[in-house]
Amino acid sequence: MRIAVLGTGVVGRTIAAGLTSLGHEVMVGTRDPSVTRKRTEPDRFGTAIATWLSEHPDIGLGTFAEAASHGQLVVNATSGLASIPALTSAGTPHLAGKILMDVANLLDFSHGMPPRVQASPEASLAERIQQTFPTAKVVKTLNTMSAGLMVDPGVLAGGDHTVFISGNDAIAKAHVAELLRSLGWRDIIDLGELSTARGTELLLPLWLSLRHALGLAPTAYQFKIVR
Amino acid sequence: MRIAVLGTGVVGRTIAAGLTSLGHEVMVGTRDPSVTRKRTEPDRFGTAIATWLSEHPDIGLGTFAEAASHGQLVVNATSGLASIPALTSAGTPHLAGKILMDVANLLDFSHGMPPRVQASPEASLAERIQQTFPTAKVVKTLNTMSAGLMVDPGVLAGGDHTVFISGNDAIAKAHVAELLRSLGWRDIIDLGELSTARGTELLLPLWLSLRHALGLAPTAYQFKIVR
Repeated sequence: MRIAVLGTGVVGRTIAAGLTSLGHEVMVGTRDPSVTRKRTEPDRFGTAIATWLSEHPDIGLGTFAEAASHGQLVVNATSGLASIPALTSAGTPHLAGKILMDVANLLDFSHGMPPRVQASPEASLAERIQQTFPTAKVVKTLNTMSAGLMVDPGVLAGGDHTVFISGNDAIAKAHVAELLRSLGWRDIIDLGELSTARGTELLLPLWLSLRHALGLAPTAYQFKIVR
Repeated sequence: MRIAVLGTGVVGRTIAAGLTSLGHEVMVGTRDPSVTRKRTEPDRFGTAIATWLSEHPDIGLGTFAEAASHGQLVVNATSGLASIPALTSAGTPHLAGKILMDVANLLDFSHGMPPRVQASPEASLAERIQQTFPTAKVVKTLNTMSAGLMVDPGVLAGGDHTVFISGNDAIAKAHVAELLRSLGWRDIIDLGELSTARGTELLLPLWLSLRHALGLAPTAYQFKIVR
């Protein structure tokens, strides 16, 4: 499948590499590819993005619009606060009718660490994206864990933990569940309509507290729904 | 230990019975015991409270103030929206220096089911209680699950799931952890300061979605932190 991954941060890179290793044709979208290609200094994610791109020759790089045009499925892996502008830049026609897999969280890092979570029981980023791009089929998933676990759940407890799906389109959710299974996910819970993404976006404050309380690497803990 | 359990709903009743069965001297606190004793019609929790009281002769009933005065430890098991008035009625002197175990959630049932969760990443009920009663030692715990699991975690998956603790007083948290262990809890995570209760109070929207999505009884599922 041709897949667009919007965002060049650790989440975008990890998902792009994971999906490429499964044989998908991935293009990463960024605001200005010429600027991205010049970034040769290591950044806060470690490897410089230009170095990372040279290490992943199978992964394309384009503007948000070029990537979205390429993708039969589009992954929103941008920072939550930048998601609506990035998707606007990608362009409504390039999102129309496509599955838009939203893995982002509204984390505000402008006040230092830990980031402030801009979520509430009355609203979610996923719903705001759906309202802004009504012809896209938004499916919220994977936003409740570290990037490394998203594409390789087996590295923790043999994959014995849970991923959630929220969305208004049942067929889109079935496709996303299939993609998740291909990544190794076994415990996939369909929470229902996209409004249930409020619940998963609201897991972030606890996720951040746990990181501090447990003193573990972000890939070393995860939520599981025991039943 | 002499324990006060404030609140006569399903959470209060379940905790009162559970702690009594461990040998503690429990007094349940309510606004007006004479009114409570006259309630002989089955209510939304099933058994009428007067019937329940007659079935639990070891459990005392008093005003919020009488119960709080009786308790060396006070459990806030009132409805979250009624907690501050109930604790005010209990009286600051009866809470001073005591562990105040807060298991409540801000659920607004006035708009029907599911209830609206009045929590946010910027505030928690637990912190508001601590601010209002600064001499109490507030410890938030047990608010992320069904009442039945609170006092009997072993009924689900042999107890292989997680309970969280938040609070500013380390000794108070150690006492609460000991109480939790006596109830059968094995996986107890101390999240840190009371502000981390924001994270656990924000689990409620997902908890409510899961109940609908899984179609399970409330005691048949629970959060576990895999690590």
